[in-house]
Order: sequence, then structure tokens, then C-alpha cells
Amino acid sequence: MNSTARFITLEGSEGAGKTTALKVIHDTLNDWGVSFIQTREPGGEKNAEAIRDLLLYSDHLDAKTELLLMFAARNEHVVKVIRPMLEKNIWVVSDRFVDASFAYQGLGRGLQWETIQYFESLVVGETQPDLTLYLDVDPETGLARAASRSEKDRIEKESLTFFNNIRAGYLKRMSENANRMKKIDANQSIESVTKQIQQVLNDQQKALLT
Amino acid sequence: MNSTARFITLEGSEGAGKTTALKVIHDTLNDWGVSFIQTREPGGEKNAEAIRDLLLYSDHLDAKTELLLMFAARNEHVVKVIRPMLEKNIWVVSDRFVDASFAYQGLGRGLQWETIQYFESLVVGETQPDLTLYLDVDPETGLARAASRSEKDRIEKESLTFFNNIRAGYLKRMSENANRMKKIDANQSIESVTKQIQQVLNDQQKALLT
Ligand SMILES: Nc1ncnc2c1ncn2[C@@H]1O[C@H](COP(=O)(O)OP(=O)(O)OP(=O)(O)O)[C@@H](O)[C@H]1O
Ligand SMILES: Nc1ncnc2c1ncn2[C@@H]1O[C@H](COP(=O)(O)OP(=O)(O)OP(=O)(O)O)[C@@H](O)[C@H]1O
Ligand SMILES: [Mg+2]
Ligand SMILES: [Mg+2]
Repeated sequence: MNSTARFITLEGSEGAGKTTALKVIHDTLNDWGVSFIQTREPGGEKNAEAIRDLLLYSDHLDAKTELLLMFAARNEHVVKVIRPMLEKNIWVVSDRFVDASFAYQGLGRGLQWETIQYFESLVVGETQPDLTLYLDVDPETGLARAASRSEKDRIEKESLTFFNNIRAGYLKRMSENANRMKKIDANQSIESVTKQIQQVLNDQQKALLT
Repeated sequence: MNSTARFITLEGSEGAGKTTALKVIHDTLNDWGVSFIQTREPGGEKNAEAIRDLLLYSDHLDAKTELLLMFAARNEHVVKVIRPMLEKNIWVVSDRFVDASFAYQGLGRGLQWETIQYFESLVVGETQPDLTLYLDVDPETGLARAASRSEKDRIEKESLTFFNNIRAGYLKRMSENANRMKKIDANQSIESVTKQIQQVLNDQQKALLT
């Protein structure tokens, strides 16, 4: 694609601090003077948000159904929001993207890594993030933080084992994408996490802006 | 599967007469004294019916999104209805199943045959129908029949070219599954179609009941 706009994603388990981290990215991109949109997954587009509701509030979904719905939502998001924005030279910052499927539907639900890879190549193709901040948090800490918020959805009701598998999924994915994915120690205070994110963005600034 | 229950599907484009044909199958299975359920796709299960609504009434869906949603609904249908029923020795008669995806998402929307095959092996696996009646109708005739009914959904609003491609998709699928799929000339009168269906069922009776 003949665009200089960048695609940045945030990843991490429940309560890792993604929504909090978005503000840091927001401020930094404003400092850099680039135009960007903020979006999220599952969702980020009208049809995708309707699919998000099925994903979060259905009674029980088979693991493969969850995978298929997740990529259905992602496909609308990629085709109707992410690609058109990048083509218009607008940066895209997304709260979660494809790495989450390797963590949640892969090691979380126990579907094969190769199956997720097939869906990734079908739906994401070349539209991979330029930079991904992975907020790594101890599941107990993350769940305790998330618990202080609103009522739990279908996925937040899962067991600690499930969230330990999510974390292992993200770490496996990191080991396969060491260049793109940067790990943030999200067990630290908000001040420390903020500094870590600013550090990564500063380190990447030159590469991202050229 | 250690079951003697059979899985029968009906296929065909809009207005081919599937719902009409269901009655003939219904009567014949009752004559044979077998227990069966009737179901349909997309849908046939609570979550799958919610996905059906997205499929039929969303504003615009990318072709890949349609494929992913269709197989998400099918997976719930297979896992929660079709397999459990067959395991309980109850026959299943479905108004549409996986052949429709080869016709609609394949030749209709132009997605690759191999892509549909990948989804088929992921979701359907061994749960292939024992017998499929394909009601072959001239698209103009079928659309004229369907037009006499209720308001059109997202798919019924497509062009004649689209429905010619659907037909070509079904015929290609038949050529690959000649044993399982039986063609019914659905351009004929309801009386003739009824006789053709009864003929096929009588021909298959021995094989199906043993
Ligand atoms: N580093 C931190 N230390 C302590 N509390 C934090 C930290 N980061 C975030 N929090 C708090 O934890 C809660 C969850 O944070 P946040 O909503 O940013 O997480 P999230 O990753 O977006 O969660 P979700 O996956 O549910 O969207 C919020 O109340 C937030 O203020
Ligand atoms: N062989 C036939 N000749 C004339 N009219 C028919 C024939 N078969 C069905 N019809 C009529 O055409 C209309 C559509 O038939 P039907 O609902 O059975 O089609 P269908 O394949 O189930 O359509 P859809 O794909 O929209 O569900 C109905 O009004 C039905 O009575
Ligand atoms: Mg959040
Ligand atoms: Mg019908």
C-alpha cells in the first residue's frame, strides 16, 4: 500500500490496562502531529458491533463458532474501516486485533494454531499492524482490576486457568513476532506503564514516521 | 457414528420449491415409521437463528464475512442439533445445508472453491448428508415463484446473473457428489415434482433403512 499511515494495536488480557494505555498513545500521536482514529475489536464497525453482541452475550457458543464470528467481525473491520483509513493516510490505533485470536481462540479455547493462521491469512492478509504493544499482566491482578468495573460478559466469566492460557498464547505469539510486538510490564503502576509505553513509542518514532 | 438415523437435505435456489418438497419427505418418512426432525439453514438453532438475522438483514456484508457468518451458524446447527439428534437415532431433514455455501458463497459471491472446502472440513467433517435432493429450477421461474411471497431479504434482491451462478455452483457440486445428490427437475408442476421426489425416496428406501 502506498501509504505512510501506520497501524498500531494494543493487546492484553482483561484488566491489563489497554483502555488506559490508549490515552498515552493518543497523546503521543497528537504530539507527533499525525491524524489517527481509535477503534476496537471485536467491533469497530456497524455489522462488526452487531456480531460483538452475539460474541459477548450469547448463551453458550461452541469454540469454532466463536472463532468464525470473531473473524467475521474482524473482516468487516478490516475491509470497511482499517484498510480505507490507512489508504487515506490516517493512522489506525486498535484496542485488540488478530493476536487476541491466537491467545483466546487458540490457547484459550484449544483450537489449533494452524487453524487460526488459516483465518489470519484469509482475513488479515497484508494488513498486519506495524507495532503492537502487548500489556503483560498477571491474570489475578488483571481480573481484580477488571472486577472493579461493570457486570461480567461471557468471556470475563471464565476461570483463572483460561486466563493463564491466554497469557501463554500471547507470549507464544510474541516469540513468533518479536520485531512487531513489544512487551510492557503491566503489573506495574499506571505511572510506570505510561513511561514504558512512552519509551517504546519514542524508540519506534523514527521508524514509524518514515 | 453407531446410529441408523439418516441425514437428508434439500437444496435449490429461491423458489425452487424446497419448502413444498419438505411436505413430501415428511409424509414419506411418516409412512416409513421413522422418527425425524425438520430444520433449516441458515438457522435451526437459537444462536444460529440470531446469526441468520445478521445474514439476511444487515446493510451490506463483504463476501468473506457472509462466508464466516454462514459457517458460524452452521457450526452451532451441527454441534447442537444435527449431531445430537442423529446420535439419538432421530433422522434429520434440513432445508439447505453445506452445498448451498458452494453455490452461494462459492460461485455466487466468487470465493474460491478450496476456501469453501476448508470450511466444510472444519465444520461439517463426517456429518455429511446421506441423501440430498437438489431441486433444479430455471432462475427466472424460481424468482417469479418466490416473488409471489413476502418482502425480499438481502439475498433475494440479487440479480439474475447471481442466480445463474448459484445454479452453476449447485451443478458443479452435483458433479462432485453424484452418489449423494439427486437432481429433481423443479421446473415441472408441483404434481410432477412430488412424483419425482417420491421416486427418489422409493429408490433409496432400502439403502436408507439398512
Ligand atoms: N497499571 C495499572 N495499575 C493499577 N490499575 C490499573 C492499571 N492499569 C489500569 N488500571 C485500572 O484497572 C482497570 C482496568 O483497566 P483498563 O480498562 O484499561 O483495562 P483493559 O485492558 O482495557 O480491560 P478490558 O480488557 O476489560 O477492556 C481500570 O479501572 C484502570 O483504571
Ligand atoms: N413446482 C412448482 N410449480 C409451481 N409453483 C411452485 C412449485 N413449487 C413451489 N411452487 C410455489 O412457488 C412458491 C415458492 O415455493 P417454496 O416456498 O417451496 O420454494 P423454496 O425453494 O422453499 O423457496 P425459498 O428458497 O425462498 O425458501 C410457493 O408459492 C409454492 O407454492
Ligand atoms: Mg478495555
Ligand atoms: Mg423455503
